[in-house]
Amino acid sequence: MYAFDFSAGDGTDKSLLGGKGAGLAAMTALGLPVPPGFTLTTEACRRFTVEEELPDDVWGETLMALRRLEATTGRKLGATTGTPLLLSVRSGAKFSMPGMMDTVLDLGATEAVVPALTAWSGSEHFAWDAARRFVQTFGKVVLGADEAKFQGVLSELRAARGVDDDSKLSAEDLREATVRFREIVAETGATAPDDPVEQLRLAVAAVFESWNNRRAREYRRIHDIPDDLGTACNIQMMVFGDLGDDSGTGVCFTRDPATGEARPYGDYLPNAQGEDVVAGIRNTLNLDDLAKRHPGHHAALTGVMRTLEAHYQDMCDIEFTVERDRLWILQTRVGKRTAQAAIRIAVEMVGEGVIDRNTALLRVDPITLDQLLHPRLQRPIEIEPIVKGLNASPGAAAGSAVFDADRAVARAKAGEPVILVRWETTPDDIHGMAASQGILTSHGGRTSHAAVVARGMGIPAVTGAGGIDVDEAQRRFQTGDVVVNEGDRITIDGGTGLVYLGDLPLSRPEPSPELEVLLQWADEVRTLGVRANADDANTAAEAVRWGADGIGLARTEHMFMGERLPIVQQVILGHDAAAALDALEKVQTDDFEALLGAMDGKPVIVRLLDPPLHEFLPARIDLVAERAELVIAGESTAKIDEMIEAVRRLEEDNPMMGLRGVRLGVVRPELYRAQVRAALAAVARRLDAGGDPHLEIMIPLVSTGTELERMEAMIHREMAAASTPVDVPVGTMIEIPRAALLAAGLAKHARFFSFGTNDLTQMTFGISRDDAQDAFLVRYLEEGLFPTDPFVTIDIEGVGKLVEMATRAGRAARPGIEVGICGEHGGDPRTIAFCHRIGLDYVSCSPPRVPIARLAAAQAALGSGAENASV
Amino acid sequence: MYAFDFSAGDGTDKSLLGGKGAGLAAMTALGLPVPPGFTLTTEACRRFTVEEELPDDVWGETLMALRRLEATTGRKLGATTGTPLLLSVRSGAKFSMPGMMDTVLDLGATEAVVPALTAWSGSEHFAWDAARRFVQTFGKVVLGADEAKFQGVLSELRAARGVDDDSKLSAEDLREATVRFREIVAETGATAPDDPVEQLRLAVAAVFESWNNRRAREYRRIHDIPDDLGTACNIQMMVFGDLGDDSGTGVCFTRDPATGEARPYGDYLPNAQGEDVVAGIRNTLNLDDLAKRHPGHHAALTGVMRTLEAHYQDMCDIEFTVERDRLWILQTRVGKRTAQAAIRIAVEMVGEGVIDRNTALLRVDPITLDQLLHPRLQRPIEIEPIVKGLNASPGAAAGSAVFDADRAVARAKAGEPVILVRWETTPDDIHGMAASQGILTSHGGRTSHAAVVARGMGIPAVTGAGGIDVDEAQRRFQTGDVVVNEGDRITIDGGTGLVYLGDLPLSRPEPSPELEVLLQWADEVRTLGVRANADDANTAAEAVRWGADGIGLARTEHMFMGERLPIVQQVILGHDAAAALDALEKVQTDDFEALLGAMDGKPVIVRLLDPPLHEFLPARIDLVAERAELVIAGESTAKIDEMIEAVRRLEEDNPMMGLRGVRLGVVRPELYRAQVRAALAAVARRLDAGGDPHLEIMIPLVSTGTELERMEAMIHREMAAASTPVDVPVGTMIEIPRAALLAAGLAKHARFFSFGTNDLTQMTFGISRDDAQDAFLVRYLEEGLFPTDPFVTIDIEGVGKLVEMATRAGRAARPGIEVGICGEHGGDPRTIAFCHRIGLDYVSCSPPRVPIARLAAAQAALGSGAENASV
Repeated sequence: MYAFDFSAGDGTDKSLLGGKGAGLAAMTALGLPVPPGFTLTTEACRRFTVEEELPDDVWGETLMALRRLEATTGRKLGATTGTPLLLSVRSGAKFSMPGMMDTVLDLGATEAVVPALTAWSGSEHFAWDAARRFVQTFGKVVLGADEAKFQGVLSELRAARGVDDDSKLSAEDLREATVRFREIVAETGATAPDDPVEQLRLAVAAVFESWNNRRAREYRRIHDIPDDLGTACNIQMMVFGDLGDDSGTGVCFTRDPATGEARPYGDYLPNAQGEDVVAGIRNTLNLDDLAKRHPGHHAALTGVMRTLEAHYQDMCDIEFTVERDRLWILQTRVGKRTAQAAIRIAVEMVGEGVIDRNTALLRVDPITLDQLLHPRLQRPIEIEPIVKGLNASPGAAAGSAVFDADRAVARAKAGEPVILVRWETTPDDIHGMAASQGILTSHGGRTSHAAVVARGMGIPAVTGAGGIDVDEAQRRFQTGDVVVNEGDRITIDGGTGLVYLGDLPLSRPEPSPELEVLLQWADEVRTLGVRANADDANTAAEAVRWGADGIGLARTEHMFMGERLPIVQQVILGHDAAAALDALEKVQTDDFEALLGAMDGKPVIVRLLDPPLHEFLPARIDLVAERAELVIAGESTAKIDEMIEAVRRLEEDNPMMGLRGVRLGVVRPELYRAQVRAALAAVARRLDAGGDPHLEIMIPLVSTGTELERMEAMIHREMAAASTPVDVPVGTMIEIPRAALLAAGLAKHARFFSFGTNDLTQMTFGISRDDAQDAFLVRYLEEGLFPTDPFVTIDIEGVGKLVEMATRAGRAARPGIEVGICGEHGGDPRTIAFCHRIGLDYVSCSPPRVPIARLAAAQAALGSGAENASV
Repeated sequence: MYAFDFSAGDGTDKSLLGGKGAGLAAMTALGLPVPPGFTLTTEACRRFTVEEELPDDVWGETLMALRRLEATTGRKLGATTGTPLLLSVRSGAKFSMPGMMDTVLDLGATEAVVPALTAWSGSEHFAWDAARRFVQTFGKVVLGADEAKFQGVLSELRAARGVDDDSKLSAEDLREATVRFREIVAETGATAPDDPVEQLRLAVAAVFESWNNRRAREYRRIHDIPDDLGTACNIQMMVFGDLGDDSGTGVCFTRDPATGEARPYGDYLPNAQGEDVVAGIRNTLNLDDLAKRHPGHHAALTGVMRTLEAHYQDMCDIEFTVERDRLWILQTRVGKRTAQAAIRIAVEMVGEGVIDRNTALLRVDPITLDQLLHPRLQRPIEIEPIVKGLNASPGAAAGSAVFDADRAVARAKAGEPVILVRWETTPDDIHGMAASQGILTSHGGRTSHAAVVARGMGIPAVTGAGGIDVDEAQRRFQTGDVVVNEGDRITIDGGTGLVYLGDLPLSRPEPSPELEVLLQWADEVRTLGVRANADDANTAAEAVRWGADGIGLARTEHMFMGERLPIVQQVILGHDAAAALDALEKVQTDDFEALLGAMDGKPVIVRLLDPPLHEFLPARIDLVAERAELVIAGESTAKIDEMIEAVRRLEEDNPMMGLRGVRLGVVRPELYRAQVRAALAAVARRLDAGGDPHLEIMIPLVSTGTELERMEAMIHREMAAASTPVDVPVGTMIEIPRAALLAAGLAKHARFFSFGTNDLTQMTFGISRDDAQDAFLVRYLEEGLFPTDPFVTIDIEGVGKLVEMATRAGRAARPGIEVGICGEHGGDPRTIAFCHRIGLDYVSCSPPRVPIARLAAAQAALGSGAENASV
């Protein structure tokens, strides 16, 4: 069976009938006033695709369904007497692909039926309008004529008659348009058959063919929709909203799709067909206006809305037409909505008893919470942006442009909001980034240093704004004619990548009460812990506000930056290193104490120093330039020469795989030891103050058990030597493929595993993320070589396989070992679903992602949350 | 049973008796004249180690064995009348650890027994000498006295008497020495017990304890000997070669250990004890001298040698003593020998029917062939080296020092042998390296670029010679006071790391006829293919000479270097790129044709371009310096600015994981296409010339199936478009962990896999080899964090696990898929054993390693060839 009358089923099989066909069948079953018709199934489309023509049996069933339709309606396709049947022929796939595929309307409105149509409608104007609409839609869709030419003819006619609207053209004008449209069609070399049945056959073929047009394929690629589903084709009796001012057409939602408020919302356009609404030529009326004009129709529509919302147990989007004294419902589907509306509708429907809490949790896409919680520009925005970059970290920010990290800190301390503008940022800029409201760079992608750090800190950022020319020496940037000097105010929108001159008004949304409720429900359902990545007390406090269960990753390298940098450099260069180490230990003790205080009662995983030491020294190329200036000035170069030599000694061709992480712990054991002492001292202080610290110490970049064994022994020695006895669990990051492969052995010396999926992804793919972004990653994603960005959603087949193997091996070797992930993936819903499935204990993500993770974890526990297609 | 009399067993259990004890038992069983005694087993030592003292039952058995020994010999320990029994108490482990553990001699020679000893020997001199020897050895070994002080006393006495040899001291002198020795011992605070039985107890304990002394532990670590074996302790009646000129002691080999010649070789020292031979004070006599002095003893010794060689079916090393009219055999073991001797002995013993071919194959350590086949300095070397670096690539070379690659090429073309001297080398130097006889660098370890490339090319290299100061601008280097200018002759020895001034005479050994025979036997036995890594026709020809079965890896990037570099830069910068690509295609066609010609009839795997493009451009830091000079000179910087910008665009933080390999094939498809066309054209030319080319094309750095699918499609298109139809297999390198994890999917698009274990090791460990060498790898190896260098021997637990998983998955997905490895590991015997075990088809290594690999593959097939301990 390829042809299903709308009245033949209950509309549950969207795979076979498509979304539109299923909706029509469901509404018919509900007794709603749906124009009769039938659906050619997606199976018919799939056969069409394979056989490259409409199979005979499909067409045979189509003709039989057409005969039934004629019998039901009492109308006949191509009838020159009695009531002619006009048809709409519409595509409709399982997943909505709005506007991507083709539609033919008014099929059957040949010139031969114009007299009969005139007689039926009482309007020659209507009859010729239907005829020209048919030539136009059929010519364009089936025969490939140029739509612009049709519009040209209509423009000419409107100009000649001095009217601004096609509905004001005369019947004679429309007849002339019909004739001229036929000439335009003839220019294509193809001729439209006169027989309406033959027209139908061609229209069906065109609809099926449109499944594989370029833009449909592209849309499917972007939205991860399989190519082999096919579209259904809905053939339905035309009804007409353009029979005069007593007719009209509209769209309504059962609740407000923008706010979620529980009252219907809609647009209505008198004397018009659906495509006229889309064209947006005339202003639409609202539902209150409809109630005034047609109280009966409004009441009926309200009833339909109630019926459909009850049926779908969700907010519905409905297309309807008033044909004089009849209300027709043309289409329905579950309505699209904003994140805010989704949350409110879901929570309120629970209150109304329509759905249960679990259903409500599944109704909100976690990723949409991201837009919801960042500061935003107040709309509408009155001025033009000066440049566009990449939307690297969401939210908007306004402040004074500054061009180096130290000045950012200085101005911010003085109470001035600042935007740090750099060619690109380096770890040296961290303190300046932390002090800024937002970041703007001219180089680097969405995964550049600036983007990653900004997202981690929850700071808005626009990166890779190639249109600006940053002159850090002169402290200004230029784009086109606009020059922005230090201190000039700018506003960036990290959600769009746009940059504006001046201070634009911002609003920071408070989490709505409905969101709070939803997240509480999520916490009751989820079994996966959600921790935050937070390096300092402020960020930790923010994480607690967002509902984090603890800190999954506290990086300690930021404690080495900013004003501590000179001490750190002393340690590295070996100048009075012991004293410098002592000083460093002292300040770190304060840092750890504050961090543990902010997370009192919750676990805090501190990762020992990870980056290569040269990140704490200046770049050699800069030093060489500086040295040249000293030579010219005739000054001594002894000091800078020493620094240049130190930098050169530490330089690496591939620093990511060089002397960092635990390797520093082996080669420069004093550094790790000082960190451990500081952390243990902080625990002691917290305990003395009556606090409840839960410190855990994590060793990064481990590739072999011996490394971990040595660090574990060192930490145990320090614990034994500490004045206050504490038991601090020691664990390891798993971020090197070998660590994942040897997890059973590592578990002997680790009380917890934390997958550092950023580095693990880099090493497993052999891809340096920052280098790859512009060089090839964008291209790989565009061309489908990678179906998803492995740095956003975990690569289940490769990296995920390692994570799963290691988790299983670790658990076997040490039952109950605590296992989580702390890469950027920790805030990605599809990754979270994966982590839930393989039984991890928690995910850890940046604080603003915590609500997303809480909801995604709940959805995963409810068995939803799609994992990504494999690379 | 802890104490075994020599006469109690057949000496087969070396684990229990140790090597020395087993030899003594075996010889006793063979009826050879072995001084009687017994062995305390390794089990006794293990109990001693655990219980931290000599267990009572062990000591009880020792005493019983002592009583039996006294009964057998008719002598008594500590006897003051009759014949006193003197004992040697010697360590002896399962694996020879020469000189690492302790020995006590002349035990029982107390002052109380001197009269009886005098009576027995007829020499008061002998008796006091034994007494002083005992105090000395017991004092040193058991009580920790300072050996230097004993030697000091002897020196004083010799000086006072005006003699040059202890044997010329009088009995009275020796008595005085004994007294003074006791005083030296007393200084330690310990006192030697007077009871010889108690002395024995302490001596046994000292021997067992010496199993765990520092140098023994270190020796075991280096030689991969387990720590829990323990040593045996051999207690044996002393016999004396120092009873006068009618006595003596010696060492002999059943065949010449240096050349392998089948005639006995030995040293004999009259009137001496074993330790005097070791001390090397007096010149020794040879076996012919022994025959003249003691024809009877010589004949007996010759018989012993015959017996032992027949028993062990191998060349034996024998210690013997002539005690007046008796010949005693003190020890035997299978003798150490040079590589050359090992081969000759093995092959000749097959000819003699002593052993079979398989045994012969197992008798030669493959790695020793390395020393055998490189040019060497003729010894003795008369002059002092000027500096010492790392022995990075074996062999010696002499030539003129040159300081840049272009001059190396120019001088070499003019027929001058050159040594390229650099701070360190880069891929830009490849043409210069290829033109040089040897490489000398002041920086970089054994796995630096210079070292790796030099080994690959089979060129001797000394790297990391920190003692030289290379001034590339002035074209000279300095070490101490020595300045070497361009053109000065130097000689480097890559086997020792030494560098000499001037041309030293070299000799390049031809493979001996015995080696040729052995390798032919190896080829008959091995199932693993051995291919070579060779990039050009010359190297390929060399590989064929060494017996390679084909080329496992032909890198094409070297074809982009040297005089082609300007064309390559044109392509990269996009200057008339199409013409430049054409030119490149033409020259590459010639390269491929020559390569296929040299390997006619054998497979040649060509790897498409792998390194990042910036390797073909100058370094930015150099360009910036150059630009500064142009500015000062007032010249235009337009051209260099363009280059600087191009370099900056291509710069990467971690180039190893950046835009290289197949990623270039995706982003710059024209480069790969040109290479494929050139390779296919070369095949066509070879076919036209009646050749038998077996080209295979390999795609590097694949991480996902889509990459491979795209390249496969491109190559198939080019094959279809080629004028001569050929079927060239397309395969992939597996060098990224993800590729190994997804091997089943890759096998769909790959007719062969080749594991690039260099990069695979780097990515799996997260270690950049070049960066790591000095930064931490050396330290990791020294401190045992890595038991073996994973860049030398494959890391079985981690990298090997990936190789094994991928091989299994690839074979399951595509039965019969050809799988090999082509990293540097391909020439390492332990890696070869692993490759054989997991069923790979071949290994590929640098040409000079081919003989090693052939032999190692044969040993693997015979079930030998130890795999490395795990990291």
